[in-house]
Amino acid sequence: MAVIVQKYGGTSVGDAERIARVAERVVAAADSGHRVCVAVSAMGSTTDELLSLAAQISPMPHERELDMLLTAGERISMALLSMAIIERGREAISLTGSQAGIMTDTSHGKAKIVEVRARRVLEALDAGKIVIVAGFQGVSTDTYDVTTLGRGGTDATAVALAAALGAELCEIYTDVDGVFTADPRIVPDARKLHAVSYEEMLELSAAGAKVLMLRCVEFARNHGVLVHVRSSFHDGAGTWVRREDERMEQAIISGIAHDTSEAKVTIHGVPDRPGVAARVFRPLADEGVNVDMIVQNVSVAGRSDISFTLPKEDIIRAKPVLDATAEEVGAASVETDPDIAKVSLVGAGMKTHPGVAADMFDALADAGINIEVISTSSIRVSCVVRASEVERAVQVIHDRFRLSEEALFREAHPDTVTDQMKALKGDPES
Amino acid sequence: MAVIVQKYGGTSVGDAERIARVAERVVAAADSGHRVCVAVSAMGSTTDELLSLAAQISPMPHERELDMLLTAGERISMALLSMAIIERGREAISLTGSQAGIMTDTSHGKAKIVEVRARRVLEALDAGKIVIVAGFQGVSTDTYDVTTLGRGGTDATAVALAAALGAELCEIYTDVDGVFTADPRIVPDARKLHAVSYEEMLELSAAGAKVLMLRCVEFARNHGVLVHVRSSFHDGAGTWVRREDERMEQAIISGIAHDTSEAKVTIHGVPDRPGVAARVFRPLADEGVNVDMIVQNVSVAGRSDISFTLPKEDIIRAKPVLDATAEEVGAASVETDPDIAKVSLVGAGMKTHPGVAADMFDALADAGINIEVISTSSIRVSCVVRASEVERAVQVIHDRFRLSEEALFREAHPDTVTDQMKALKGDPES
Repeated sequence: MAVIVQKYGGTSVGDAERIARVAERVVAAADSGHRVCVAVSAMGSTTDELLSLAAQISPMPHERELDMLLTAGERISMALLSMAIIERGREAISLTGSQAGIMTDTSHGKAKIVEVRARRVLEALDAGKIVIVAGFQGVSTDTYDVTTLGRGGTDATAVALAAALGAELCEIYTDVDGVFTADPRIVPDARKLHAVSYEEMLELSAAGAKVLMLRCVEFARNHGVLVHVRSSFHDGAGTWVRREDERMEQAIISGIAHDTSEAKVTIHGVPDRPGVAARVFRPLADEGVNVDMIVQNVSVAGRSDISFTLPKEDIIRAKPVLDATAEEVGAASVETDPDIAKVSLVGAGMKTHPGVAADMFDALADAGINIEVISTSSIRVSCVVRASEVERAVQVIHDRFRLSEEALFREAHPDTVTDQMKALKGDPES
Repeated sequence: MAVIVQKYGGTSVGDAERIARVAERVVAAADSGHRVCVAVSAMGSTTDELLSLAAQISPMPHERELDMLLTAGERISMALLSMAIIERGREAISLTGSQAGIMTDTSHGKAKIVEVRARRVLEALDAGKIVIVAGFQGVSTDTYDVTTLGRGGTDATAVALAAALGAELCEIYTDVDGVFTADPRIVPDARKLHAVSYEEMLELSAAGAKVLMLRCVEFARNHGVLVHVRSSFHDGAGTWVRREDERMEQAIISGIAHDTSEAKVTIHGVPDRPGVAARVFRPLADEGVNVDMIVQNVSVAGRSDISFTLPKEDIIRAKPVLDATAEEVGAASVETDPDIAKVSLVGAGMKTHPGVAADMFDALADAGINIEVISTSSIRVSCVVRASEVERAVQVIHDRFRLSEEALFREAHPDTVTDQMKALKGDPES
């Protein structure tokens, strides 16, 4: 019998009634002939309540002890879900991250899964049990200390379990219907995607799409785990995340992601000589600051400007490092700007359709939106714009590429996107 | 450096402020030059809240999953206590029952500790850390499932750790000041005992004293663990529970316990022939009913009555078994009476002072309180009385033996207690 892994987030198990509904869904999956393993998050507000308790005890709680505290959350939800399944006449067993063999490194609060020792899970599945595993948590290989995986950690647990169990499918149940062409709160006619490739999902997640965390998608890609992102509130299909192949919907553009969590830094008047970029970015890396979208403009009179983005929360740590570096390399000044946003257009078809970036810049220009920084990959174009203009930017790009229409339809004339757009412009119904 | 084990109950760690106070007390013990290991219960109402969640999911929650759920409680309190200690500049580490090597049998909800594999606790103590261990929980040797130890389980955790660590002392911090000559809510001038022997404490706990659970005392006696029961709200000395030796306060009587949790059963007209008692009590034992205070009266015309007590909550299970047995052995009828209470007088000195029982019966007779069943051990006399008279019974026995006065004082004339009482009666100040 094939194994299926299901993941339920905190909203899905927010109270006893919702846990009962999840139990029914799990039992249905088992009834349909699967061996079922479930990764579950802490109930609704549990984690926040525990964090608030910790804050009353210590302004900066010890990391190991904070992980010990927070993992109580999944312990509660998984035991309740297991009870609810047993109540429905199926055998079930809940296992902590440690019991389920979720082995991690020792980075408390943001541990990475390094191995899944799935013996105990497999034995329970073989014994006909539904296995409920605590999401978001593991145990470190070195010290056998309890760790947590950080934001989106239960997704990572689910995908890692699916890989280790050789699961046919990993279902990520969430409070949205799937992956959309843009955030539906900004673009009301955003369309749910039937499928995206791992690479597109990676770019979307990295560009700010919140539906799946980057690390979870990386893990799925690296282990070839078929993922189905779907709603926990109804039975409708969601979005498949899978290998790109011939049978797949061949959209040029999959979707637009945006991200308002970053700030822009510009170092003005950097002397243009070899090694200067390394001298700017090495100290930031040493400080653990993750830098994105680095752009260096053309040198004028032996000096250039270097711009990049970084998480807003890291500005406080980065600023003194940058000031010291600027002085050291002889730059003119350091400017930080938190009022920016990033808009990214992602699609596997871009590789073979060179007009996409130009169309995107066009759409922004037509709307009078200034582009401050540009960066691209083979399947993504990202632009930094003013934070106040990001919603309009997402909307005009969505309109320009007609993303609310079915992809197959848009690709009736598979030339460059520009050509395709021109062809379609005359007749939106074609 | 000597090891000291401290136990804090749920009331002592009821909120962040109380946890901070406990942390200060723990740090003080470490500052005074001890290696400190702490066993801690779940915060105040946590266990009740978790039980209520479980009840919403299932009318009869699966035992293994209920244990998994409940153990989240100590995980929260121990992590918070550890944080609070670290906040005060001391190194600390929290360990689950499993991590601390508390190995139990597989009786979920009432597991017995079978072994403590203290390697990890010892390593942490050797590394200069204060070790916080989750009370009330363990892990089964057979299946590595999480178990709970039942009521008073954290006391058992503390004493078992003290035994395994070769601790100098096990301090049980609680919401009362120590062990009293009687329940101070019933006898306002009940006196706190300076010390009791393991045997006396066993009898007191078995007879209904709630301050220490029977299993914890058994463990302490079997491993010779010196126990100090004391208040978590002030620094005053409590009661020492220890081996009986020459230096110890040689009280004839230590105290009075009472118990209103049992019911009385009488089987009337049991044919008086060999083997009939076994035929009555074997089926109850098979049903897991714990029977206490068995009394068989003198046979009249080949028939006798058998009376005994059992926990009120077991009546429902016991009644059909008893009815069947009564019919099988040809007894006349079975009568159950829940409106009884047990009053017990406990003291190591009874062994050498034969008048104690007579004095106790006298005191009850003088107060017009009828005795329904009597049972004795070498250091205990227990009487069953009407439940409505139990408080008065405790009071008159307390008065008769002058338990509110210091024991040394009472024993100025170490004859029989009766003689002693007579000698003292004339002059209460002597």
